[in-house]
Amino acid sequence: MRDFSQGHEWLSINTATVRRQGDLVAIFEACGRHGIRAVSPWRDQVASVGLERAIRAVKDNGLVLSGYCRGGMFPADAAHSAGMRDDNCRAVDEAKALGAPCLVLVVGGLPQFSRPGSAASKDIFAAREQVEAALADLLEYAGSLGMPLALEPLHPMYAADRSCVNTLSQALDLCDRLDPHRSGRLGVALDGYHVWWDPDVMAQIARIGRERLLAFHVCDWLVPTGDLLNDRGMMGDGVIDIPRLRAAVEAQGFGGFVEVEIFSERWWQVPLDEVLATCIERHRSVV
Amino acid sequence: MRDFSQGHEWLSINTATVRRQGDLVAIFEACGRHGIRAVSPWRDQVASVGLERAIRAVKDNGLVLSGYCRGGMFPADAAHSAGMRDDNCRAVDEAKALGAPCLVLVVGGLPQFSRPGSAASKDIFAAREQVEAALADLLEYAGSLGMPLALEPLHPMYAADRSCVNTLSQALDLCDRLDPHRSGRLGVALDGYHVWWDPDVMAQIARIGRERLLAFHVCDWLVPTGDLLNDRGMMGDGVIDIPRLRAAVEAQGFGGFVEVEIFSERWWQVPLDEVLATCIERHRSVV
Repeated sequence: MRDFSQGHEWLSINTATVRRQGDLVAIFEACGRHGIRAVSPWRDQVASVGLERAIRAVKDNGLVLSGYCRGGMFPADAAHSAGMRDDNCRAVDEAKALGAPCLVLVVGGLPQFSRPGSAASKDIFAAREQVEAALADLLEYAGSLGMPLALEPLHPMYAADRSCVNTLSQALDLCDRLDPHRSGRLGVALDGYHVWWDPDVMAQIARIGRERLLAFHVCDWLVPTGDLLNDRGMMGDGVIDIPRLRAAVEAQGFGGFVEVEIFSERWWQVPLDEVLATCIERHRSVV
Repeated sequence: MRDFSQGHEWLSINTATVRRQGDLVAIFEACGRHGIRAVSPWRDQVASVGLERAIRAVKDNGLVLSGYCRGGMFPADAAHSAGMRDDNCRAVDEAKALGAPCLVLVVGGLPQFSRPGSAASKDIFAAREQVEAALADLLEYAGSLGMPLALEPLHPMYAADRSCVNTLSQALDLCDRLDPHRSGRLGVALDGYHVWWDPDVMAQIARIGRERLLAFHVCDWLVPTGDLLNDRGMMGDGVIDIPRLRAAVEAQGFGGFVEVEIFSERWWQVPLDEVLATCIERHRSVV
């Protein structure tokens, strides 16, 4: 396992972590000031400064991307499926324009939450079938542009409204079916927050293989967790044994950026430079 | 699948559902008034009226138990392990005295949450080993009294603090290892709230077998869910396809009570008789 105690050259900041503290340009400049080399921006943040300005700010601050967040939200009723497809193709285009190494996919849950306005359903099995069909479709488009797609399994508490792909096993089964030859076009974004609880997680990490390990995210699980979405913890403040997960991931040959992604009402109140300084310190001490 | 539309003879009320509205005697009397035949009481509610009075109130209201909640919370440090064992043996004794068909087990998470005061740990793998060892131990005691133990896998969002057994697969693997001959002494309590998201749930239900299906609980998953513990929904108000789960459970030969267990700040504000009337109506229409 790489020694992170002496520096933070492999730290990436997912820009949602500081989304309240400034726009994307301000976030990229702050990363530049702190010697952070990589970022993973969100589409809404890119849209609010404009794609061209975002591309320029990446270059101006000497940054690279560790991913682009996010495509997906596949389940939709018939009236919303063309819009869903267009939206995802645009996400691929933006990822390409920004020079992202992959587009991260949060696949969506039931159609009424995935694409609001869609007819309500309680059939999560059907939602999973829709995910597979739409992913196969998007894979053709993304493949034609050379943009890898990174499936991110989400914690089961998001099954209804954000992602009906909830375990690493399930994500890897999808990869096996849609890209059996491990072309590198389809893989996973592994976030410790979503998978740490899984009794099967170590066996599944061992199954990933280097060519499918497209991104690795960290934060921490707090006890108590006050909110299902926006009470994630800074690394070290919770109960996840992060080094154990990182060791397993690196044993697969992963040598890329470790991306900090924290949705937290608490950390969104803290000044931008203080959040980044804390991420750097924790990256060196507890990741 | 049984037709529930004409009556509620197979409805059981888990007493936590109305724990703020009255003591256990008041709850049992209300169940009697509503023609509810079965209940599943909690230890703290029994303790607060006294075991003998609880036993008498069961009989006086013509009730039977569908389970007794709960034993478990196995992970503990050395200083707390003897206390943990004694506590669990007492839970078995109480279940026996009350005539419960099984003692439901919530196995506990990390030791500092499972048995407060225990030394803190981030090792969920070690917690799982502690669960297995302590369960094997309790199984001997419970077996000597003829009290079946029902492992309840809990939703992964409770992995840290309530249960490190988070999937039906994991619970059944434990049953296979500790009771390979399916003696009936060890099985599962299946709660739709905890397992509905699992992509493997149908295959695992098919694996349970009648002799290990000791209890079946229902409530609903709300979107949004405002609190990890106390925002469970009344059946029909959320996104779980409950009839699909019940059909799978009954296809295993299960013909017992369907137990309503709802932890909800909202429903705890509603009068006892209104909650029970709603449970009856939903039991007939959406379970």
